[in-house]
Amino acid sequence: MGDEFLNLKEPYEAKNILNSLKLKKTVEMVDIRNCLGRVLADDIYSSIALPPFDRVAMDGYAVLAKDTFGASEDNPKALKLIEVIGAGDKPQKNIVDGTCTEVGTGAPAPQKADAVVMVEYTEKSGDDILIYQGVAPGENITKKGTDIEENNLLLKKDTVLTPDKIGVLSAIGMATIPVYVQTKVGIISTGNELVTVGEDIDYGKVYDVNSQSITSAVLSCGCIPISIQIVSDNFEALKNAINSLIDDADIIITSGGTSAGAGDILRPVIEDMGKVLVHGISFKPGKPTLIGIIEGDENKILIGLPGYPVSALMVFESLIAPFLRRTSGWKAVVSGPISVPLKISRRFHSSRGRTHQLLVKVQDGLAVPIQKDSGAIAALAHADGYLEIPKSTEIIEEGTIVEVKLFQR
Amino acid sequence: MGDEFLNLKEPYEAKNILNSLKLKKTVEMVDIRNCLGRVLADDIYSSIALPPFDRVAMDGYAVLAKDTFGASEDNPKALKLIEVIGAGDKPQKNIVDGTCTEVGTGAPAPQKADAVVMVEYTEKSGDDILIYQGVAPGENITKKGTDIEENNLLLKKDTVLTPDKIGVLSAIGMATIPVYVQTKVGIISTGNELVTVGEDIDYGKVYDVNSQSITSAVLSCGCIPISIQIVSDNFEALKNAINSLIDDADIIITSGGTSAGAGDILRPVIEDMGKVLVHGISFKPGKPTLIGIIEGDENKILIGLPGYPVSALMVFESLIAPFLRRTSGWKAVVSGPISVPLKISRRFHSSRGRTHQLLVKVQDGLAVPIQKDSGAIAALAHADGYLEIPKSTEIIEEGTIVEVKLFQR
Repeated sequence: MGDEFLNLKEPYEAKNILNSLKLKKTVEMVDIRNCLGRVLADDIYSSIALPPFDRVAMDGYAVLAKDTFGASEDNPKALKLIEVIGAGDKPQKNIVDGTCTEVGTGAPAPQKADAVVMVEYTEKSGDDILIYQGVAPGENITKKGTDIEENNLLLKKDTVLTPDKIGVLSAIGMATIPVYVQTKVGIISTGNELVTVGEDIDYGKVYDVNSQSITSAVLSCGCIPISIQIVSDNFEALKNAINSLIDDADIIITSGGTSAGAGDILRPVIEDMGKVLVHGISFKPGKPTLIGIIEGDENKILIGLPGYPVSALMVFESLIAPFLRRTSGWKAVVSGPISVPLKISRRFHSSRGRTHQLLVKVQDGLAVPIQKDSGAIAALAHADGYLEIPKSTEIIEEGTIVEVKLFQR
Repeated sequence: MGDEFLNLKEPYEAKNILNSLKLKKTVEMVDIRNCLGRVLADDIYSSIALPPFDRVAMDGYAVLAKDTFGASEDNPKALKLIEVIGAGDKPQKNIVDGTCTEVGTGAPAPQKADAVVMVEYTEKSGDDILIYQGVAPGENITKKGTDIEENNLLLKKDTVLTPDKIGVLSAIGMATIPVYVQTKVGIISTGNELVTVGEDIDYGKVYDVNSQSITSAVLSCGCIPISIQIVSDNFEALKNAINSLIDDADIIITSGGTSAGAGDILRPVIEDMGKVLVHGISFKPGKPTLIGIIEGDENKILIGLPGYPVSALMVFESLIAPFLRRTSGWKAVVSGPISVPLKISRRFHSSRGRTHQLLVKVQDGLAVPIQKDSGAIAALAHADGYLEIPKSTEIIEEGTIVEVKLFQR
């Protein structure tokens, strides 16, 4: 009992160690309808030009521009209508001197036509169209390939597929998209006191929070949670649970059993199966966090979170989530949509010597600190996010701007 | 032909009209494992107290505090060990004068025990435990209900279920959660020129972009896209397509066929089935946008987006997405995680008279304007988001801070 943490790491050291661990990245082809939030695994070149033909940009009449020169309200030019073409139609007739074709927006320009007169500047007169305003060559026709040329680099590898990028892939007709296989994360809650939600609870037991919160958090990082289990505080039981997940999961996250005290079994299990890289991080809450690895053809990463739900989730958000997003290929634009600068609502005293992760509520545009101990679920009920206070900071004055990291769905 | 927009609306007017339309909100019970991003449809009260019993906060020995008074390194107090209790165990014996129970963190405190001495301040000696430091009553025991009292309001209706909130619901053992039924959105692309991605393309045809980009955008708003169709530019075809979706969808979004020109059939179709509320918004791009309604027991909303993919997506993001998120009960904390303040990279001249939605790329922490016409897909390939320039603004000076709305996955 009382075996202390051998070598407490600073948060940045723990992040560096975690980020140095490489996971194999594999690629799969996925239907474009299921690609939202996935990450491109290949550079994408345009297989076609866009527009794929000289495209009419306005409803009107395709003409030879020179036939319209000098046209005015007082002196309209009459052109013979030879065809009517809408979007999706294929023109059959070439424009020759003195003729025009009625065209709709999006239609291919007829051969030889070099401009389109907007319908507003025309009038029908029997088989003729009267043109009241001249057009310059090229006007109202978007030339083939002016948007995107064939074989040009369109989207780079590692691009996150937001709706706009899915639009870009659709424009060149791609129905299946090469994306990275999502990282699979096994989740284990350890503790003899834990009961699965929905079941009856006996005296001395509590509901297992971490399985549900960590599962959701893994999903919000674009990864796939697999095989959620509760295991008892027992060396063999935990080792068996990890072994049952190790083939399918890239990462296994446990919670509980990481303090340096009685019933703390994760460390010996990892030492038995692989090696411990970090045990103890200078975080508040979250000190007993553990990072280990089982090396092989494919490295498997083991992460031990503290058992208290608030501690477990805070360590996940600040340490594990950025790593998981990176393994999924996810890259935030700027510092990311998950962080907003807000003024703190009151003077706050931080604890020295450890990086403090402070839960906050956002109210009237201010970050309001929530002070509860890390065993308290109520804090999570009120929190909108958290801020990271460096260990060197003792006091944050009221009104100071802080970066609030918002909880993401 | 040439039927002009009757009454061009300002963007805020169009938003107000859209927001005034009420959709029925129904509730369903969903497994907590599938609740990420869903929205609570009920206030949730704690069905149990947390902790549900007086809980041991440290590994050590449960005692009567008074038995430890005066204990020191030089003068330890000896207490008889009567039981060993770990987390999840149920104590069988009461603490009486001169006795103690070994307890693990998370275990229920034995009856009558009023404090726990940390293991660091003790030593075993035969059947006795030597206590080297006194504890005050209440020390290292978290009393039942101090985190959350029974029957207290825990989470409010309309809360978005992020991982932390899912943790809170787990703590009280809820396995199924009352959430709002997600809004269902029918999606129709109109245009004789459109071909589904993955199919061969003939001269004069283009791939249907809007079906894919709008489907993804609907998903990113927490709504369910249903029955994606391409229909031709034809009154009966469009009316039939809308009719086939109207029972299942709460909202139907079409694209194309909204300009005031040839082949523009959505307006007459809506006038035939219900009524047009908005046709024409002072937006750039996106002027031809249309909002209509079919009134009934349940209102059905019809939205006509422009056919050009960039215009369609921009109008969706700025006008429709906030509405859809609200119908899903989704509420952003502060102005939302989707907006970041950035400096603009260069002086920008905006077009007067219309609200300008400018695509931007985020580069080196700056918002770099992308200037392409609204028919250009290439703009989307480079864009990270957009900013909304009010119609009264003509020039934005280099270095001005602008709010960039990031595209969301």
